[in-house]
Amino acid sequence: MRDIDLSIVHFPSGPIEVEGAEPGDLLVVDFLDVGAFPHNPWGFNGFFSKQNDGGFLTDHFPLAQKSIWDIHGMFTSSHHVPGVNFAGLIHPGLIGCLLSKSQLDTWNTREGGLIATNPTRVPPLAAPPFADTAHMGRLKGDAKAATGARTVPPREHGGNCDIKDLSRGSLCFFVVYVPGAGLSMGDLHFSQGDGEITFCGAIEMPGWLHLKVSLIKDGMSKYGIKNPIFKPSPITPNYRDYLIFEGISVDEAGKQHYLDVHIAYRQACLNAIDYLKKFGYSGAQAYAILGIALVQGHISGDVDIPNAFATLWLSTEIFDFDIGPTAAGPTKFISSGMDVIIAPDK
Amino acid sequence: MRDIDLSIVHFPSGPIEVEGAEPGDLLVVDFLDVGAFPHNPWGFNGFFSKQNDGGFLTDHFPLAQKSIWDIHGMFTSSHHVPGVNFAGLIHPGLIGCLLSKSQLDTWNTREGGLIATNPTRVPPLAAPPFADTAHMGRLKGDAKAATGARTVPPREHGGNCDIKDLSRGSLCFFVVYVPGAGLSMGDLHFSQGDGEITFCGAIEMPGWLHLKVSLIKDGMSKYGIKNPIFKPSPITPNYRDYLIFEGISVDEAGKQHYLDVHIAYRQACLNAIDYLKKFGYSGAQAYAILGIALVQGHISGDVDIPNAFATLWLSTEIFDFDIGPTAAGPTKFISSGMDVIIAPDK
Amino acid sequence: MRDIDLSIVHFPSGPIEVEGAEPGDLLVVDFLDVGAFPHNPWGFNGFFSKQNDGGFLTDHFPLAQKSIWDIHGMFTSSHHVPGVNFAGLIHPGLIGCLLSKSQLDTWNTREGGLIATNPTRVPPLAAPPFADTAHMGRLKGDAKAATGARTVPPREHGGNCDIKDLSRGSLCFFVVYVPGAGLSMGDLHFSQGDGEITFCGAIEMPGWLHLKVSLIKDGMSKYGIKNPIFKPSPITPNYRDYLIFEGISVDEAGKQHYLDVHIAYRQACLNAIDYLKKFGYSGAQAYAILGIALVQGHISGDVDIPNAFATLWLSTEIFDFDIGPTAAGPTKFISSGMDVIIAPDK
Amino acid sequence: MRDIDLSIVHFPSGPIEVEGAEPGDLLVVDFLDVGAFPHNPWGFNGFFSKQNDGGFLTDHFPLAQKSIWDIHGMFTSSHHVPGVNFAGLIHPGLIGCLLSKSQLDTWNTREGGLIATNPTRVPPLAAPPFADTAHMGRLKGDAKAATGARTVPPREHGGNCDIKDLSRGSLCFFVVYVPGAGLSMGDLHFSQGDGEITFCGAIEMPGWLHLKVSLIKDGMSKYGIKNPIFKPSPITPNYRDYLIFEGISVDEAGKQHYLDVHIAYRQACLNAIDYLKKFGYSGAQAYAILGIALVQGHISGDVDIPNAFATLWLSTEIFDFDIGPTAAGPTKFISSGMDVIIAPDK
Repeated sequence: MRDIDLSIVHFPSGPIEVEGAEPGDLLVVDFLDVGAFPHNPWGFNGFFSKQNDGGFLTDHFPLAQKSIWDIHGMFTSSHHVPGVNFAGLIHPGLIGCLLSKSQLDTWNTREGGLIATNPTRVPPLAAPPFADTAHMGRLKGDAKAATGARTVPPREHGGNCDIKDLSRGSLCFFVVYVPGAGLSMGDLHFSQGDGEITFCGAIEMPGWLHLKVSLIKDGMSKYGIKNPIFKPSPITPNYRDYLIFEGISVDEAGKQHYLDVHIAYRQACLNAIDYLKKFGYSGAQAYAILGIALVQGHISGDVDIPNAFATLWLSTEIFDFDIGPTAAGPTKFISSGMDVIIAPDK
Repeated sequence: MRDIDLSIVHFPSGPIEVEGAEPGDLLVVDFLDVGAFPHNPWGFNGFFSKQNDGGFLTDHFPLAQKSIWDIHGMFTSSHHVPGVNFAGLIHPGLIGCLLSKSQLDTWNTREGGLIATNPTRVPPLAAPPFADTAHMGRLKGDAKAATGARTVPPREHGGNCDIKDLSRGSLCFFVVYVPGAGLSMGDLHFSQGDGEITFCGAIEMPGWLHLKVSLIKDGMSKYGIKNPIFKPSPITPNYRDYLIFEGISVDEAGKQHYLDVHIAYRQACLNAIDYLKKFGYSGAQAYAILGIALVQGHISGDVDIPNAFATLWLSTEIFDFDIGPTAAGPTKFISSGMDVIIAPDK
Repeated sequence: MRDIDLSIVHFPSGPIEVEGAEPGDLLVVDFLDVGAFPHNPWGFNGFFSKQNDGGFLTDHFPLAQKSIWDIHGMFTSSHHVPGVNFAGLIHPGLIGCLLSKSQLDTWNTREGGLIATNPTRVPPLAAPPFADTAHMGRLKGDAKAATGARTVPPREHGGNCDIKDLSRGSLCFFVVYVPGAGLSMGDLHFSQGDGEITFCGAIEMPGWLHLKVSLIKDGMSKYGIKNPIFKPSPITPNYRDYLIFEGISVDEAGKQHYLDVHIAYRQACLNAIDYLKKFGYSGAQAYAILGIALVQGHISGDVDIPNAFATLWLSTEIFDFDIGPTAAGPTKFISSGMDVIIAPDK
Repeated sequence: MRDIDLSIVHFPSGPIEVEGAEPGDLLVVDFLDVGAFPHNPWGFNGFFSKQNDGGFLTDHFPLAQKSIWDIHGMFTSSHHVPGVNFAGLIHPGLIGCLLSKSQLDTWNTREGGLIATNPTRVPPLAAPPFADTAHMGRLKGDAKAATGARTVPPREHGGNCDIKDLSRGSLCFFVVYVPGAGLSMGDLHFSQGDGEITFCGAIEMPGWLHLKVSLIKDGMSKYGIKNPIFKPSPITPNYRDYLIFEGISVDEAGKQHYLDVHIAYRQACLNAIDYLKKFGYSGAQAYAILGIALVQGHISGDVDIPNAFATLWLSTEIFDFDIGPTAAGPTKFISSGMDVIIAPDK
């Protein structure tokens, strides 16, 4: 049992060796507590520029934008996005055990195969190993760096899952590929919505984790496990009132797509943004809210051809005002002036 | 305010004219109560045969299969799927207002466009109007039947949304396209998981709805509404302990796909089925559980190339036994013998 | 498994014989569902006149008063108490098994002993057997009527417990005193606050129960059971925002009492009534709200001499308006005019 | 906004002056966060000896006893009470603003009046001012010490309320009696049940509070406030499965009392202890569990003469094993050997 300090944005801490862990075991990780550093009571949310690969709604928000969020104990609010104030659910975006050489080869082969279908695409279809910026630890030699997997995506071992509910009180079961397990984690978020849609995406911040580990010997086979599984915390924000937006897989141009959940969820997000703008928010402020505010994204229908169907659940309780709808229509609670900061492309 | 009786499986009741409703209004529908008929305390869940267009996991479960679910007050259980017993969340799978002629034309054009990209595909990419089985009410003439939209998919007006949370106590805001609104509803379900993945998919049953309607005049414009929005009930099953399964967009053959949530959710479902089989369930029993048991399907990550990332939340509280995982490994609580009934293809 | 129709206000249905039940067993009762009759969608709440023994706050509300509550599916509201609208939690106020002759003798002896300490008190300290109104069923003879226990109080077997949470989905374990158990129940309530403080006290209504029974043989001894135990429903109103009022055991005249929870809870109730009056409610309207609206009454401190300490939890979510408090002070949302109806003493 | 360190057991920190606070205002206190010190990850629960005034069940547990509770992040467990493990809800047992001279005189008069009814009683009916141990701060002179109110009970200003739900995320409204308010607090608890029945009573520990204060000017009059009010946290343990024990106001000797909630709650507690002993717990272990484990104590009926009726809600989710009841009867999960430590009277 120990505390682990995590730096900001994606850079992992670890790997931690777990005595007795062997390939095929499940590593049980208790998230006993997690927090922000008292001397650093703030974080930020960012949209990537479309020139820098963008985010989920990059065609609608092509510029880099950023908002700062103050942390007040377990709550957060922002001068850039007035009218919301809510309890966070702090979690590491990135966590998992070391992979084996054969697992690494599998990843590089399959992701390389995808890139090969359109190798000059901008942005690329996947992020291949990149020796120039690889952090090699005690390893020496370019050859290895050239094969190290990038930490961008989630994969079988967990990785950059960005699961908003993996918070204090959660219980996780990770797969062990190598002796000693080698648990690493990073990318701490104060709060995030399902999908981390603004890409840099949650409220990013440094902080600490307090973990306890144990093992289920041979647990992968015993339970038929390929990807990690977990249990949510017994202590979570108990929101009960949501406004739920729907989206179908017809894109912004009216084109019909076949059971495409990605497009359906994008429509649900755009519908929610249109709604929030009626209360005085800018589109970017609304987008930031969806990125960070414990929004739920549900795959509500995925069999009724041709439309996939997604719902976005937005808690009404995070707002300082009534977001209705009512017969009287919306009031513009938010006056223009404050906005998410833009960093123009050069 | 009135009670409406609903027949089983998809056939809608309605349309109901709402006095004063005009195009552009929002029709506010209060789900005051909803229930099964006392004389019909049962429902069924079915998988479609792959020859009959199948369901979400049709490659894994290609045959037609069916389980019967007994309704005990607000609870359900089945002789075909022992070991589970839970409170349902009764909802109409299909609900929405009449569409306008121009809306209908838009639908037929865009869905026809999709079909045209591969018109001989089996199953088809979408379901075009089909005069032979169209229910025309008081209308006469084949010409109209030939353009009537099929009720298979969800669309802007709502339709076959299969939203498991649209239950007693929910509050819905539907878009009005024609004078009088014309609210129809059907396809009552006793309980269903996100996605209705077994396709015929929930626990299908007849029953009744008790509704109250009111209007927000010019509500579509006031609130920037395109698709319906809704609020969940203040009375819902308050599950708090879940087992959460992950899936990434690498398919069963190991092929990498680009940010494909459909494939990621399929992997999460397959991972859950593999897990449940360790307790003695057949694959089909596990599939049926995921189809009906208030399972949540979350779009957890949709920006970290190349992997989309989905999570499936399975409540542990619906099971009569501990579904762990524990260091001792699983016990086979379910003995073989009972299973979901198979109807072989001819 | 069967449905049972219940008449209004306290008159019990039963007794039901349970095959195989023997003294010392626990009778397990599943509340599968419970409801109001569709043809009778209303109930009432009443205060007893002080001349008729009154209620919890009878010195403050000495007259008989009554409000009518309309039932809309699972919700209720009243023309006499505007501004509130909430989901009920229907429960039988009175339920339990037949008692044995020796149990009956114990009750009559101990309650007679209390009455003997002040036999002329008005109201009396307890309600002794009363042959004139005793309902004797098939029994004959005045002698027995003269010893039949009154159904006013809760006792070891359950009885008139008025537990607001004993609703659809609850699971109860009653003690069996005689062969066949003899389960009776009555006094159906649409909704009630802890303590049933207005005495006639909940929203009283007729309706039906759908029950399933089973037995734990010799359960009283196995589990050390004297009084019934129960488990709440998995489906209950999930209120999360409360306004919590405190009371200490100093009475309205400023007199200090020693660890008296009854007086402390009375002060908490009076504090809540004073608060609600600031929004325009009459005292009687506020009292009615506390009587019926799923209010929680907690024994928060009972050891710190000389003050017992009680808290009253009032959900803020039942109100149509914001009940604060805010820096701006309260707004009088409720205009005078409507009130709980008074029936003057003759 | 500031952090405040709190020492262990009852000794208050403060008073803190709030600029602008005047008599009649409400002091709004936001509990932004609260925690244990990382270097002190443990606390204790104690029963007082009956010779030292005892606790709620002192006739059943007359000796001083103590258990040590380890704090693991937001969870706690004890070697002295095996089989339970749960998330705490940290709160200050004691909090409130400075009182005025006239308020102090009122307290001393009314509590002196109670003591005068039986001045030689052991234990005393109330705790009068006691100059020998009074902490006078910068004040000089015995005269003042001789009139300082003891901090034992809760009173109108709040004080030693021991409200288990006054935790991180709560919002409190305290009454202001003197210019500058003078907010003090202390007696931090890691977790406690309603009533703090073991007297020393919760899991006592040192720790810190992070508060924000604001004012509602003239709030006492605006809202009709006499005692503090508060709102619970949006983040609390979301237990949903309880075992609920009942008690009526017939005492352990079978004597009938008139609407005495204190006695009814004592019976509910004793019933719960008898139940827990069937699983192998000692009576003292069961008593300790009820003292600390977020148990709810409800005033369920207080009008049906002659019996007051109390319920004790014990979460089943804090136990490592199934506490049933089931038809199979209880299993003794807890083996004797470990117990709460006894400190014999001299």
